[in-house]
Amino acid sequence: MANGKPRIVIVGGGFGGIKLAKLFAKENVDVTIVDRHNFHLFQPLLYQVSTSVLSTDEIAYPIRAFFRDNKNVELFMAKAQGVDQARNVLLTNHGEVPYDYLILAAGATTNFFGMKSVEQHSYGMKTIQEALTIRNHVLHEFERASKPNEVTPAERKKILTFVVVGGGPTGIEEAGAISELIEIQKKEFHNLDFNDVSVTLIEATGHVLPMMTEDLQEETVRVLKNKGVNVMLNTQVVDYDGDILKLKSGAEIPTKTVIWAAGVRAVDFIGKCGGECIRDGRIKVDENLMVTGAVNRNVFAIGDCACFMHGDMKRPLPTVAPVATQQAALAHKNIMKLIKGQTDLGNFVYKDLGAMATIGRGKAVVNKPKMTGFMAWCAWMFVHLLRLAGAHANFTVAIKWSWNLFSGTRLGRLITSIKLD
Amino acid sequence: MANGKPRIVIVGGGFGGIKLAKLFAKENVDVTIVDRHNFHLFQPLLYQVSTSVLSTDEIAYPIRAFFRDNKNVELFMAKAQGVDQARNVLLTNHGEVPYDYLILAAGATTNFFGMKSVEQHSYGMKTIQEALTIRNHVLHEFERASKPNEVTPAERKKILTFVVVGGGPTGIEEAGAISELIEIQKKEFHNLDFNDVSVTLIEATGHVLPMMTEDLQEETVRVLKNKGVNVMLNTQVVDYDGDILKLKSGAEIPTKTVIWAAGVRAVDFIGKCGGECIRDGRIKVDENLMVTGAVNRNVFAIGDCACFMHGDMKRPLPTVAPVATQQAALAHKNIMKLIKGQTDLGNFVYKDLGAMATIGRGKAVVNKPKMTGFMAWCAWMFVHLLRLAGAHANFTVAIKWSWNLFSGTRLGRLITSIKLD
Repeated sequence: MANGKPRIVIVGGGFGGIKLAKLFAKENVDVTIVDRHNFHLFQPLLYQVSTSVLSTDEIAYPIRAFFRDNKNVELFMAKAQGVDQARNVLLTNHGEVPYDYLILAAGATTNFFGMKSVEQHSYGMKTIQEALTIRNHVLHEFERASKPNEVTPAERKKILTFVVVGGGPTGIEEAGAISELIEIQKKEFHNLDFNDVSVTLIEATGHVLPMMTEDLQEETVRVLKNKGVNVMLNTQVVDYDGDILKLKSGAEIPTKTVIWAAGVRAVDFIGKCGGECIRDGRIKVDENLMVTGAVNRNVFAIGDCACFMHGDMKRPLPTVAPVATQQAALAHKNIMKLIKGQTDLGNFVYKDLGAMATIGRGKAVVNKPKMTGFMAWCAWMFVHLLRLAGAHANFTVAIKWSWNLFSGTRLGRLITSIKLD
Repeated sequence: MANGKPRIVIVGGGFGGIKLAKLFAKENVDVTIVDRHNFHLFQPLLYQVSTSVLSTDEIAYPIRAFFRDNKNVELFMAKAQGVDQARNVLLTNHGEVPYDYLILAAGATTNFFGMKSVEQHSYGMKTIQEALTIRNHVLHEFERASKPNEVTPAERKKILTFVVVGGGPTGIEEAGAISELIEIQKKEFHNLDFNDVSVTLIEATGHVLPMMTEDLQEETVRVLKNKGVNVMLNTQVVDYDGDILKLKSGAEIPTKTVIWAAGVRAVDFIGKCGGECIRDGRIKVDENLMVTGAVNRNVFAIGDCACFMHGDMKRPLPTVAPVATQQAALAHKNIMKLIKGQTDLGNFVYKDLGAMATIGRGKAVVNKPKMTGFMAWCAWMFVHLLRLAGAHANFTVAIKWSWNLFSGTRLGRLITSIKLD
């Protein structure tokens, strides 16, 4: 409390971190957001950047722009590296940041479940840079394939085989969006044989979209298959060397493109915060969202990086935005109580708002209330537009989606950073 | 003429190359566009990407999307490396491309006038990648400067000193746009002393915008100065080591940001096409736009890479889009005549449509008809929107510009690829 005001430090400018900072902005406290990036990323639409629908600045919003009128909120652009709870300081690659109250809202990263070969050769999709890398790579494979003497027929088939691993919302949406991208490419690659092009979705369990009911899961698979996606359920990946994707069954898929959307884990930093972590790296919090065993009772965790045991089954909550924002609201309340010297902290109760996923242009599934097809897609579009940061993005994204729906084209098909050797 | 149709090969998908391909698309010929990128770039607006106004996909348009309905037009994404005129083949990094008629429309690159130190440490602005690099760098310097213990006061001043070299349209527009970006940053960096921030425009001659009349030149300098840009005329750069910019006068400017917009030259490839090149690398063409001394009378050059001697003074034409598109029209006509066995080729006559440059939000100068201020800016906006490829981009760019004008913010302020440490 350098100037008398409590110093609130928030690690991460995602859904939870921004919500929290907005709540604290109105209090008599100083807020520092620590993030590797200077922008908030609307991760649920990252797949649309990777498939040439949206551009980066439509799903990313400068963190400082949220707090233009809040002089008590600052961004400290740095990589968080650990917490020294005894000294109340956050450690970063740009030095120490002292705090009175710390909230870990650092989010999640791709989980390759220890498969080093897969991690090395497949494409994750958690950052802008990763989404752009996928976009550039996929588009470039089409250009390579279109050159008459560039590749052998076998190689051509391999570079036009696109595999998405993981049957959650991200994997479903990515596979659907790639199959539609192919339809657009078909119109413009006049000399390419599109029999060589394929999209495969691989899921380890027996169903896609685990949070949905069985009929919605089946509807999703049906729609994907109609789009030409080769859906492989009960299929496990064991190895990928950049050329051959090996399955547990012994089958092999020659491909240059494996997009890994099969799981998430907390970022490594979370393991260095002095708390207790579960297998996927999430840090355990108590019912007040305080990190279990916090030395000075002033370290909280919310969102994808926090492990809050939920329900009768005592399972961790899903890694979705509504969990993070609901937890942000409680963390703010509890910290304000501590600041005021009150001890009756509130307990977290999760309110499930339902789940939704698009399966491409004009089609989606929603489980609360249960909807499919075009109506579900409209609901999906409405909810996502509402939550996008910045009215400007709402405008341009709405225009692009409508354009996309009616004209069936994607103007983001730009290869911006492939090495041209 | 493999299938009986003449093979037209166009090197470059810029203004000239695309215009040419559109004209040839309607003829009974096969057209191949060879470009390093898969997109057409609207270069006049590149400065708006570098200053966080527009996003890449608003000024870049997939080349294939122009020719969706023209099955006789193909893109061959490759780097042109030379021409073997005797064998009628274009050499590329992906093999040879045979032609019956070849048009060089390869454009220009930054001219550092042989100053290696400047080339190594300053920022060019001719490609998407370069514009994004400037954007990321400039925004990142603000983040660095905002960290309390990151830099010394002298270092802080240095990293907040932004220098643009070159008083042509690009330099003017860039300097104006940076000074406006600073105004926006001012609102959001609550702890930064903006007395440390400055923008300097350096021009070697005694006036900016050489194509404009003296009163418009003076008006431009006046507007820039009002915006806080430090305009240095009659000032020559002699060296830049990445920290200190040295001027011919002996003066030194400590800065980490030198944006070089002081000149262009033809790309290196043009020197390997078997023609005669002038000092800035442009290849000489005759009055029919045929490369001087073309072995088989089937190699033409247009636009920024062509040297067409113009007027009584016999000077090369300016490197602007209207020259390229006007030359494209004549090159198309002349080649069609040759295909039909006619010999009465047309001579090129340049029609000067005037010039325009913005000096920031709501201000511009136009020389035909002479206009300044808001009216000129509206004209500038109208002309640029009309010429942008893709009705979709017209929409979103119009929205962004209006947003920009009224709200005075820029949502493209994203640091997407700075190394963090």
